[in-house]
Amino acid sequence: MIKVGIVGATGYTGVELLRLLAPRQDVSLEVITSRELQGTPVADLFPNLRGFVDLEFTAPDSEALYECDVVFYATPHAVAMKTVPTLLKRGVRVIDLSADFRLRDIALWEKWYKVTHESPEYAAQAVYGLPEVNRSKIVDAQLLAVPGCYPTAIQLGFLPLLEAGMVDTNMLIADAKSGVSGAGRKAAVGSLLTEASESLSAYGVSGHRHLPEISQGLNAYAGKDVKLTFIPHLTPMIRGIHATLYAPLKAGQDPSGIQQLFESRYKDEPFVDVLPNGQYPATRNVRGGNRCQIGVCHLPANNMVVVLSVIDNLVKGASGQAIQNMNIMFGLDESEGLRNIAMLP
Amino acid sequence: MIKVGIVGATGYTGVELLRLLAPRQDVSLEVITSRELQGTPVADLFPNLRGFVDLEFTAPDSEALYECDVVFYATPHAVAMKTVPTLLKRGVRVIDLSADFRLRDIALWEKWYKVTHESPEYAAQAVYGLPEVNRSKIVDAQLLAVPGCYPTAIQLGFLPLLEAGMVDTNMLIADAKSGVSGAGRKAAVGSLLTEASESLSAYGVSGHRHLPEISQGLNAYAGKDVKLTFIPHLTPMIRGIHATLYAPLKAGQDPSGIQQLFESRYKDEPFVDVLPNGQYPATRNVRGGNRCQIGVCHLPANNMVVVLSVIDNLVKGASGQAIQNMNIMFGLDESEGLRNIAMLP
Amino acid sequence: MIKVGIVGATGYTGVELLRLLAPRQDVSLEVITSRELQGTPVADLFPNLRGFVDLEFTAPDSEALYECDVVFYATPHAVAMKTVPTLLKRGVRVIDLSADFRLRDIALWEKWYKVTHESPEYAAQAVYGLPEVNRSKIVDAQLLAVPGCYPTAIQLGFLPLLEAGMVDTNMLIADAKSGVSGAGRKAAVGSLLTEASESLSAYGVSGHRHLPEISQGLNAYAGKDVKLTFIPHLTPMIRGIHATLYAPLKAGQDPSGIQQLFESRYKDEPFVDVLPNGQYPATRNVRGGNRCQIGVCHLPANNMVVVLSVIDNLVKGASGQAIQNMNIMFGLDESEGLRNIAMLP
Amino acid sequence: MIKVGIVGATGYTGVELLRLLAPRQDVSLEVITSRELQGTPVADLFPNLRGFVDLEFTAPDSEALYECDVVFYATPHAVAMKTVPTLLKRGVRVIDLSADFRLRDIALWEKWYKVTHESPEYAAQAVYGLPEVNRSKIVDAQLLAVPGCYPTAIQLGFLPLLEAGMVDTNMLIADAKSGVSGAGRKAAVGSLLTEASESLSAYGVSGHRHLPEISQGLNAYAGKDVKLTFIPHLTPMIRGIHATLYAPLKAGQDPSGIQQLFESRYKDEPFVDVLPNGQYPATRNVRGGNRCQIGVCHLPANNMVVVLSVIDNLVKGASGQAIQNMNIMFGLDESEGLRNIAMLP
Repeated sequence: MIKVGIVGATGYTGVELLRLLAPRQDVSLEVITSRELQGTPVADLFPNLRGFVDLEFTAPDSEALYECDVVFYATPHAVAMKTVPTLLKRGVRVIDLSADFRLRDIALWEKWYKVTHESPEYAAQAVYGLPEVNRSKIVDAQLLAVPGCYPTAIQLGFLPLLEAGMVDTNMLIADAKSGVSGAGRKAAVGSLLTEASESLSAYGVSGHRHLPEISQGLNAYAGKDVKLTFIPHLTPMIRGIHATLYAPLKAGQDPSGIQQLFESRYKDEPFVDVLPNGQYPATRNVRGGNRCQIGVCHLPANNMVVVLSVIDNLVKGASGQAIQNMNIMFGLDESEGLRNIAMLP
Repeated sequence: MIKVGIVGATGYTGVELLRLLAPRQDVSLEVITSRELQGTPVADLFPNLRGFVDLEFTAPDSEALYECDVVFYATPHAVAMKTVPTLLKRGVRVIDLSADFRLRDIALWEKWYKVTHESPEYAAQAVYGLPEVNRSKIVDAQLLAVPGCYPTAIQLGFLPLLEAGMVDTNMLIADAKSGVSGAGRKAAVGSLLTEASESLSAYGVSGHRHLPEISQGLNAYAGKDVKLTFIPHLTPMIRGIHATLYAPLKAGQDPSGIQQLFESRYKDEPFVDVLPNGQYPATRNVRGGNRCQIGVCHLPANNMVVVLSVIDNLVKGASGQAIQNMNIMFGLDESEGLRNIAMLP
Repeated sequence: MIKVGIVGATGYTGVELLRLLAPRQDVSLEVITSRELQGTPVADLFPNLRGFVDLEFTAPDSEALYECDVVFYATPHAVAMKTVPTLLKRGVRVIDLSADFRLRDIALWEKWYKVTHESPEYAAQAVYGLPEVNRSKIVDAQLLAVPGCYPTAIQLGFLPLLEAGMVDTNMLIADAKSGVSGAGRKAAVGSLLTEASESLSAYGVSGHRHLPEISQGLNAYAGKDVKLTFIPHLTPMIRGIHATLYAPLKAGQDPSGIQQLFESRYKDEPFVDVLPNGQYPATRNVRGGNRCQIGVCHLPANNMVVVLSVIDNLVKGASGQAIQNMNIMFGLDESEGLRNIAMLP
Repeated sequence: MIKVGIVGATGYTGVELLRLLAPRQDVSLEVITSRELQGTPVADLFPNLRGFVDLEFTAPDSEALYECDVVFYATPHAVAMKTVPTLLKRGVRVIDLSADFRLRDIALWEKWYKVTHESPEYAAQAVYGLPEVNRSKIVDAQLLAVPGCYPTAIQLGFLPLLEAGMVDTNMLIADAKSGVSGAGRKAAVGSLLTEASESLSAYGVSGHRHLPEISQGLNAYAGKDVKLTFIPHLTPMIRGIHATLYAPLKAGQDPSGIQQLFESRYKDEPFVDVLPNGQYPATRNVRGGNRCQIGVCHLPANNMVVVLSVIDNLVKGASGQAIQNMNIMFGLDESEGLRNIAMLP
C-alpha cells in the first residue's frame, strides 16, 4: 500500500489525481492540503468525489505529509520549490506537477517565471518525468518533475524525427491548441464561458513559458540546438491539446520510412498510440485517458513532415503522467490505475 | 468469465458498453454486430477503443451470439423484438437497452412506437431493470429491459415521495433537460453542432415516447394513476440529464421529513447519491459515472417539493445501468466495473 | 440627435448597448464611464467595437453626464440608487438596467438585495419598462427601470393567460434556463468554461432575486396574488433564456381559444412573436435580436397549459429592451436600431 | 432598388445572405429557390427570419430569376456552372458563393473537385471577388466568384508580406482553425454536436480543396510560385476562422517595418482591421460582422513572422463578402448593409 499525500489539490490537476487514485486498492490517500479550504471536505469542492474521497483539506504544513511514501504537488509554480526539500530530507519522494523542477538551467527558469528559485540545487537532481525518454532514471527518482502539457504533446510528436536526424531543425513549428482547463481553476475573465466559448485565439505569441521546457527536450533529442516557433491557442473546449507540428524533411531522406519510424519508436510504449498511415487523431479520442495519440503525414509538394499529436492535458499532460511516473518509481505495473478508456462521446 | 455479445454497437450506448466492459477481467467480449459495418474493426469507428477492443463488427445473425452468456441490444426500437426470442430459446440471457420490452401494455407501446410488436408475449416476462426498485426480480431475469434515460432520472426523483404518499399526484411536473447524445449517433440536422449548440429548446411538447414508461413506474410507486406533465428539452451539451421535478406537498404532511425520507430510501443504494440539505446537483458531477445524484427542496410559500435529479444519460441512463443489471443477474458485486469516478471538469 | 451617456459600460449589457447604439445616425454617444478603466479606450476592452466607438472610459462622476439627454445605467444593483437622483434633478432622463428601481415595495427590495435603498422616493415614480404592458407610461418616464431578463421572458409568457383569467393562479410554475452571460462579465469560478460547459444545474432553488419582480408583474396582470414557483437553471451557452411555464387551465375554460388569445394579445407588438400552433421556439431563433418568441400548447390529459418563451437575455432581456424604451421615451419609431435579425446559426 | 434572387438558400450562406439583405431598404428580395423545399415558407426553415422574409422557396428554374438584377448562388459546388450561363445571357449579374468560378486553371479545378466543368469559358471571365485586391475589376463584373472562407483569411494575412517581397516563399505555413458551420448545414455524423464539440482535429491533411485557390492568389501577390503548407482544423464552435500564418523573414529585411506595412496596406480598407502592435485577434471579435482582423508578430529568435488573421467564415468568408461585392458592382457605398457590429459575447 503506497501512502500518498497531495499538496494543493483544489485545482484541476488535483481533482484529476484524486479521480484516478481514489479507486485504487494499492494506494492510500493520506492527506490532501489546501491553505484556504482546510477543514472543508474535499468532496464538497468536487462533488464527483462524494463517496470516494472522505478526507478534508488540511493545512499545507501538515505533519501527515512526512508519513507519506510519496507526495504530489499540484500547486502553481514557485510553491513546490519552498517545501519540497524538507520532504526529501525526511525520505518522502516527491512528484511535482508544477514547473519548478523541469528546467536544468535555473537562470532560464528565473527569467521565464520571474521569481528567484529557492531550491536550485534540487533542480539538478530532479528527474524529468517523460517515461518514453527517461524511464530508467525515473525508477530511482526522489524528486520527479512532471512535464507540462504542451511539452508532452510536442516532444512526443517531434521525438522520433529528431532522434533519427531526419528533419531540418532550423525551422520547426509547433502550432498548439489547448482546452481551457490548461488555464487552471482560477477565476479569470478570459476563461469565462462567455469569453472563451465560441471563440479561438492565440496567446503568448511573443513567448510562452513552456517554450524553454520544450526546447530543452528537443535539443537533447536532436543532439544540438533546434529552432522552434511555438504558438499556443486557446480553444473552446474543456480538455485536450492538439499539437500540429511542422518539420521540413532533410534533403535526401526517404519519406516512405516515416510512418514506420514512429511505429517502431513507440511500439512498446503503453501510452503512445501511433495511428495507421492516413488516419489522424482527435482530442476526444483521448479525453480522460492517459494516452498520446499521434498521426503522421508527409507532404511531397513541400517535402514537409506534419505530425499531429493529441493528449488530454489533465491526464497524459499532467495527473495521469504523474501517476504513470509513480507506478514506475514504486515498481508497479506502469499502467496500474490508468487502464480506463477515454470517454467518447 | 462472462461471455458477452453486443448487437448493434455502432451507436453511443454501444461504445459506452465497450468502454465500461473492455477493461474488465471477468468479462470476455465475444461478438459485436453491425449490419452496415461488418468486417470493419470496431476501433476504426471508435478510436478511443484502440488497443482495448480488437474485434471487428460481424453480421447481426452471427452464430457466435448463441455462445454468449448474455447479449446486450444497443439497437433502435423495434429491432430487439425480432430476434430476442431466438436467443432466449437458446438459453442466452438478454439485456435490451432499447424500448421494446419496457412497457407492460403492448397496445400502449404500439400506439407510441407506431409499429406492431412482434414479441408481445415476451414483454410480459421481461424484468424492468431499475435495480433500486426491482433488484430481487433482476437476479433471475432472462430478458432484462433497461429503463430509458429520462425515465431513470425522473422515477428515481419521484420514487420516495410517491412511495410515502406525501405529494398530490394530480399535478406532477417533470421538466427535463438532456444533452444531445440522447438523440443517438445518427446524422440529423437538428443534432448538428451548428444547430444544437448555443441554443435550447423544448421538443416533444405534446407528447414524448418516454411518458408512458415513466407513468407506468410512477403509477406503481403511488399505487394509483398519477397525472404527470413531462416536457423534455434539448440542451447544448454532449451528456447529461437534469430533471427538475415539481410535486405539491399534500396538506398536513410535514416538510421537515423530506430530506430524511430521501436519504433513508437510498442509503443502501450504491448508485444513488442524495445530496445534503441545501446542496443541488449538476450534471457534470456524474459525467461518465453510473450515478444518480439528487437534491431536494421544499418551498414553503407554495408548499411545493422540488426534486433535482441528474444522471449521465449514457451511463446510469443506459449502458452503465445495463451493466449494473448484468452484475446482479450474474451474482457479481453490483458495482463491478462501475467504480470509475465521474470526470470533472 | 439624442445625446447618450452610459454609466458602467464594462459589462455585457454595456457592450450590448454600444453594439446597438453605435451604428445609429440619430444617437450620439457622449460619455461612457468606468471607475477602474478611466482613460482606457472602450474598444481596447471590447475589440468588436474598434472603429465604431472611439471614446475612452471616463470617471463615473463626469460632468459630461449632465449634458446628456439620457443616461443608461449598466451597473450592478445598488449603484444607480446613489447617483440617479442628481441626474434627474438636472433634467437628464435615466434608463436603469439594474434592479434598483424595479420593485414598488422598498422593504421587499431591501430584503432580497440585502442593502438599504438610498433613493426609495424615486422607486415610486420609476416606470417599469415592459412596453407590452406600460407603453403609455413609458412615453413620459424620467426614470425608467428596465425589467430583468427572467422577468421579461416569464411575464410575457404568462401575461395573456392571466389577463384573461383562464388559469389557476395557485400553481404557476416557471422553469427557466439561462445562458451564462446572465451572470455578467465578472471573474467567478462557477462561470468558467471549465465549470459551466458540458453541465447543467439549478441555482437559487430556495429563492432568486427575480422572484419578487416577476410576482409583482403577475399579480398585477391577474388582479390578485398568484403563487409562483420559479426555478432558474444555468445552461452551457453564452446567451438565451428559455422559460418553460406551466399553468393549470381553469375548469370550464375552453382550451381551443388559447392560441388565438396569444396571437391577439401580441398582434401589434413589434417584438413579441407568437409561433403558429404546434411550433415551439429555440433560443437561437432570437440570438442577438430584440424579440420574445412564444409557443403555446395545451395538454388535455392534465388540462395543463404549457408556454415556451424565449429571449436573448442581453437584448430583449436587457440592452435591447432598454433601447426600445428609449425609442418610446423620445418619440422615435419603437423599432429604430432594433431591426437587425437574430443570428442563426 | 436592386432586385435580388438567391439560388439554393437552404444552407448557412443562404440564411446569412437573408439576414443581411432583408433589413435593407435598397434591396428587394424577389425569389429564393430550393428544389426540395419549394412551397415552404423560408421562415419556417429559419425561424429567425419570421416577419422579415415572407417569401416561400420556389423551384430553382423559376422564371423570376431572369427578372432579377443580381442572383446569388449559395449552392454546393458544381451547381452554378450548370445554370449561370443562361442568367448571364439574359443580362442578370451573378454572384457565386460556390467554388465553381474561383480557379483560372480549369484542369486544376476538375482535379480537386472531381467533376467536369460544364462552363469553363465563363471561368475565364469571372472576377475573383476579393475587394482588397480586385476592387476595380469588381465594378464591372458580370460573374463574380466569391472567395472561400479559408482563402479569404489566409490571403489577407499573407498579402502585404508577399507584395512587399519580405518573406521566404519557399516555406509558408497556414495552420487554420474553423468552426463547424464551414461544413455547411447538412446531416453528417462528423458535424454532430456529440462528435464535434469538446474535440479538435485536423482534416484534409494530405490536401484540401481550398489549397489551389489560396495558392493561385499567393502566387499572384508574390509574382512567383510559392510553397504553402495548409492544414485546416475542425474546432468546437459554430462560426469563425483563425488562420495562424508562418513566414520566415528574408535575410536582410528589417522586421521593425512589418507592423507599419500591414497598417499601410489596409488603411483604406473598410473591412480589414489591423490590430496595434502586441495585440492579437480572437474570432469572437468579428462574429457576425464582415471584418477580417489581423495581428502580426515577429519572433527574433527564429526571424519568423507570425500573422494571425480571423474572420467570421459565414460573413467576410462568404455572405458578407458577397454583399460587399454586390455593393461595389452596383455603385453603392461598399459598407451598405454591413455596418452591424460583431456580437460579443
